[in-house]
Amino acid sequence: MLRLVCGLFVVALVGSAQAQDLITKKQVFELPSFTTQSGRTLKTVKVGWESYGTLNADKSNAILICHFFSGTGHAAGKYAEAEKVPGYWDAIIGPGKAIDTAKYFVFSSDTLVNLSPGDPNVTTTGPASIDPDTGKPYGYLNEKNDKGFPIVSIRDFIEVQKKLVDSLGIRKLVMVAGASMGGLQTYEWAAAYPDMVSRIMPVIASAEADAGLIDWLDIWAMPIRLDPKWNGGDYYGKEPPLVGLAQALKIVTLHAQTNAWATGAFGVKWTKDGDSPATSFSNRYLVETALDNAGAGRAKTSDANSFLYLVRANQLFAERAAERLKAIKAPTLIIYSPLDQVFAADSVKRTAEAIAANGAAVDVVALQGNRGHLDGVLSMKQAEKAIAGFLAK
Amino acid sequence: MLRLVCGLFVVALVGSAQAQDLITKKQVFELPSFTTQSGRTLKTVKVGWESYGTLNADKSNAILICHFFSGTGHAAGKYAEAEKVPGYWDAIIGPGKAIDTAKYFVFSSDTLVNLSPGDPNVTTTGPASIDPDTGKPYGYLNEKNDKGFPIVSIRDFIEVQKKLVDSLGIRKLVMVAGASMGGLQTYEWAAAYPDMVSRIMPVIASAEADAGLIDWLDIWAMPIRLDPKWNGGDYYGKEPPLVGLAQALKIVTLHAQTNAWATGAFGVKWTKDGDSPATSFSNRYLVETALDNAGAGRAKTSDANSFLYLVRANQLFAERAAERLKAIKAPTLIIYSPLDQVFAADSVKRTAEAIAANGAAVDVVALQGNRGHLDGVLSMKQAEKAIAGFLAK
Repeated sequence: MLRLVCGLFVVALVGSAQAQDLITKKQVFELPSFTTQSGRTLKTVKVGWESYGTLNADKSNAILICHFFSGTGHAAGKYAEAEKVPGYWDAIIGPGKAIDTAKYFVFSSDTLVNLSPGDPNVTTTGPASIDPDTGKPYGYLNEKNDKGFPIVSIRDFIEVQKKLVDSLGIRKLVMVAGASMGGLQTYEWAAAYPDMVSRIMPVIASAEADAGLIDWLDIWAMPIRLDPKWNGGDYYGKEPPLVGLAQALKIVTLHAQTNAWATGAFGVKWTKDGDSPATSFSNRYLVETALDNAGAGRAKTSDANSFLYLVRANQLFAERAAERLKAIKAPTLIIYSPLDQVFAADSVKRTAEAIAANGAAVDVVALQGNRGHLDGVLSMKQAEKAIAGFLAK
Repeated sequence: MLRLVCGLFVVALVGSAQAQDLITKKQVFELPSFTTQSGRTLKTVKVGWESYGTLNADKSNAILICHFFSGTGHAAGKYAEAEKVPGYWDAIIGPGKAIDTAKYFVFSSDTLVNLSPGDPNVTTTGPASIDPDTGKPYGYLNEKNDKGFPIVSIRDFIEVQKKLVDSLGIRKLVMVAGASMGGLQTYEWAAAYPDMVSRIMPVIASAEADAGLIDWLDIWAMPIRLDPKWNGGDYYGKEPPLVGLAQALKIVTLHAQTNAWATGAFGVKWTKDGDSPATSFSNRYLVETALDNAGAGRAKTSDANSFLYLVRANQLFAERAAERLKAIKAPTLIIYSPLDQVFAADSVKRTAEAIAANGAAVDVVALQGNRGHLDGVLSMKQAEKAIAGFLAK
């Protein structure tokens, strides 16, 4: 890409790049066999992945992006020009952007047990996937189903990613970056494969032994378990627990934002004019029905059991936290949101201090906004200079 | 009470006063008729109340304490010497304490629709109470039960309290104080009866039009509605929805505290040695089972429908917030917790500014601690000087 000294021209070029959308396509990475950390060997593990930019000849320009709890590998760009919304970090990934795809080969994969196996652009292996041995979905692991899909961890997620990295012939990653659960994956990568990771950029994520987070994740999962249609995890081929799943997604939505956001977006308004919540329990506030509907919309492509597997994967991350933190030596750029209710500012600060204590260079950037946790997805453009500077170091 | 100049002697006296417990007893205040804000007239409304200290001859030394969502009128003292735990604000109410019962007559009542009709020390009128017209519980108001207990509001709570105040011959309150939902009642009192309220002390409570809080309250209520035993509110005389109620109380417990508290209290430990959460979904973390059990314990004396009525009362408070705030002219001492996740610090600050803009004197005190919202119940001793000074003004 032509770099001009004059600021105005750079703006014009960036504008032009944005007008011409980054187009990507989903590919499938397949492993004939994969053994989980818990010791189960699965046949034919498949995950979707996509990339932006070009891998250079010596394969030294690769940046891996890891996705959040309800996310997918669609980190940037569009699958087709006609799409309305690009990938979630499009503000910082693209030609001329903070993570410049004119320079870097950026790629991202769907995790194991991805929340959205019903999304046509997602490929994942999880409880809803067909077990090649039986021709039926693995299902939920329990006393009645010991062939159910094994419990997996953040470490399992990066082990699959590592096989993808190996398959591409990449021996060292310029950076591993990700938001929230994606941030946990950056910490895990840096600790597990220190020689393969030159930098990490964990966003809205700390790496502490956090019992509060373990229990919040349990609360997120609770509505699914309370839905009779969940049926102990046995619902494939039957009616799925959409009510519980929708309510689970509603909790995540509000927990990941702020009261100020909800007030700005919905106000203290009744769902229907004239139907006062003072007179009937059926009359509800707009914010309640709007977030119910948002949850129900997202539930359609999501899988309740996969939600529970993701919850457990995130809970397990709290184990051996001190050991993992000690193993992180890569230069680190932590980006956080001061109003984050999921990964609170004090927790992020302690994580930064722990990594710095290893002798690693740690930069910390605070995002401004009223979206709380979600600012780590929505407000990343604010951090573009810090990110570009971090990559230039 | 003898007041000595020497600080050491005062400490000795306070020590002595604390050693000798403040003993109180629950009384019942009964109204032959009460008309709610929504226009329903109820027969025989009863609420429990208790007091500490002595009402003086001209009835000018009365302080009213309003309770929080899951609380009762048991603000201080004990019902019997043998009781292990005194009322929740015992640290600041008693002889020689910040709210000095040697000087003030302090009293507090159970609200309408109190959460704990099953607590032998609670008297309340709500959906679980017997409707004198039918001899059966009022039940939950819905299409099948239009004689169900009416939806009530924070304003209804203080209207019942006002009848109690009137019955005692008290024409002016030295202060109205309360934590959380009790704080909302202090704002409502100051706005509704400005000539009767000399001061308010709202603790861990703001008075904004907060749509986020409306939806968090809806999330608190969700597990009850998801429990099939809730049965649209029709469960009196049948098996109550204890599972949903316990989970609702669990959400409140964690929301009202902090992750740091949970980590300190439970750590990242398994419920049972050897039962790793990495191998089975039945194996859970100690924090999950401990908070489940705490919720289940509290559910035994609580009533699921009453929980839903309290949720709605708190939601309704968000309406006409600006109008209410404008009407508050009483000197105000706001005590808050910077880590509060229910009533966030920024919201408390805006409430303080709005009242100050009316020309009222407003003092704001921050509590130190890692309990979040709950510091407004557990850490009030920190504010004793501020409270005593506020009362002396």
